[in-house]
Amino acid sequence: MGKGRLYGLGVGPGDPELITLKALRCLRAAPVVAYYVGKGKQGNALTSARPHLHKDQLRLPLVYPVTGKKPAPPYDYEGVMRAFYDDAAERVAAHLDAGRDVAVLCEGDPFFYGSFMYLHDRLAERFDTEVVPGVCSVMASAAVLRTPLVYRDQRLQILAGTLPEDTLTEMLSGVEAAAIMKLGSNFEKVRRVLKQLGLDTRALYVERATMSGERVRALAEIEADSVPYFSMILIPGERWQG
Amino acid sequence: MGKGRLYGLGVGPGDPELITLKALRCLRAAPVVAYYVGKGKQGNALTSARPHLHKDQLRLPLVYPVTGKKPAPPYDYEGVMRAFYDDAAERVAAHLDAGRDVAVLCEGDPFFYGSFMYLHDRLAERFDTEVVPGVCSVMASAAVLRTPLVYRDQRLQILAGTLPEDTLTEMLSGVEAAAIMKLGSNFEKVRRVLKQLGLDTRALYVERATMSGERVRALAEIEADSVPYFSMILIPGERWQG
Repeated sequence: MGKGRLYGLGVGPGDPELITLKALRCLRAAPVVAYYVGKGKQGNALTSARPHLHKDQLRLPLVYPVTGKKPAPPYDYEGVMRAFYDDAAERVAAHLDAGRDVAVLCEGDPFFYGSFMYLHDRLAERFDTEVVPGVCSVMASAAVLRTPLVYRDQRLQILAGTLPEDTLTEMLSGVEAAAIMKLGSNFEKVRRVLKQLGLDTRALYVERATMSGERVRALAEIEADSVPYFSMILIPGERWQG
Repeated sequence: MGKGRLYGLGVGPGDPELITLKALRCLRAAPVVAYYVGKGKQGNALTSARPHLHKDQLRLPLVYPVTGKKPAPPYDYEGVMRAFYDDAAERVAAHLDAGRDVAVLCEGDPFFYGSFMYLHDRLAERFDTEVVPGVCSVMASAAVLRTPLVYRDQRLQILAGTLPEDTLTEMLSGVEAAAIMKLGSNFEKVRRVLKQLGLDTRALYVERATMSGERVRALAEIEADSVPYFSMILIPGERWQG
């Protein structure tokens, strides 16, 4: 195409050493490194990748207009985010059009709940694109919590704590194994659902697995207002022949 | 403890370059490298890790007594496997007791359906143990298929094609996104369920993602008897603001 190549690079769950050799190779070779970041923040993706960057690389921060709690209407959250992703895509495309490869840093895995997906959906048909998978937070949390996650034919349900309480109850009822992501201000609701379903005794909790500030705590001891967005509850599958 | 340390190392989905820096470091430092393997086979974990091994490392193959289709009773499959995992654990423990670290190679991630879990369950309380998470086959398949997997609050159901047809139907009914692993001889059953639920038009199929022999094919064109165990069907979540 004579144009630059778009890379979506999974940089892993936090620990800079949990990047793959392939992502590292692609990252080091890219003249432009893009990453999403909250206003005034460092960003987890950049924090994980920083030890691997070199100073000749142009850094392209894509700064979210909103982070944290979604503003209520009449604020047009969906419209604002659409405009932001459109603009981010055009900023990335400008480099690609100029023949420069762009590596987009993705926390965890690029296609697993990541904002890279919105760049991919806008650009993958216009530019040569490669996605390098990464270690996702679910696997990282299991490693930190030292718990096997799913045995044999067990099912694993992955869901977000942002879902309404009745949906959570329905989806977690009868699960064999589950991972509940995106806790933050949703924690108390999720804990209530787990108690109601009798799953609280099996649930394990970790904050910021493999990142700096990692913390494992017992579910019952957590003050709900202290829970960060990057926290996770796992309900591991029952042991086979333990 | 004065004893060796047990490492469960996620070596990733197949491509030797999809190992993490941390797993590579731990792997290279271990005097003993253990891996599960079918009789007379090379084993996917060893194949992925082979370029990273050095010749001074002792290799400890743990050879499955049975692979492929589970033998019917009166063959005591559960008993045979239990004895095998007990024996494998003791062979690993012998090295740990002698003060030698043992790195167990795990395809994908160690705690995500892997046989390492049976070693972990038997040994983690006796020996210092570290698990290094890896890129799992679900993320690798999404990357190869070039499809975002889950957006925003979408749920992801991960399950095995080995489940009975009615269970598959129940679990896949109304899913937002799904990954169906362990296809092999279960493929035709899974395809039938997907058709019945109207999910076949959304389903994407890949064999041996990132391994040698990787192949992407359209679901409708697959001859059921050609499907390997290491194949995957993904039902990606619907695009948000695509």
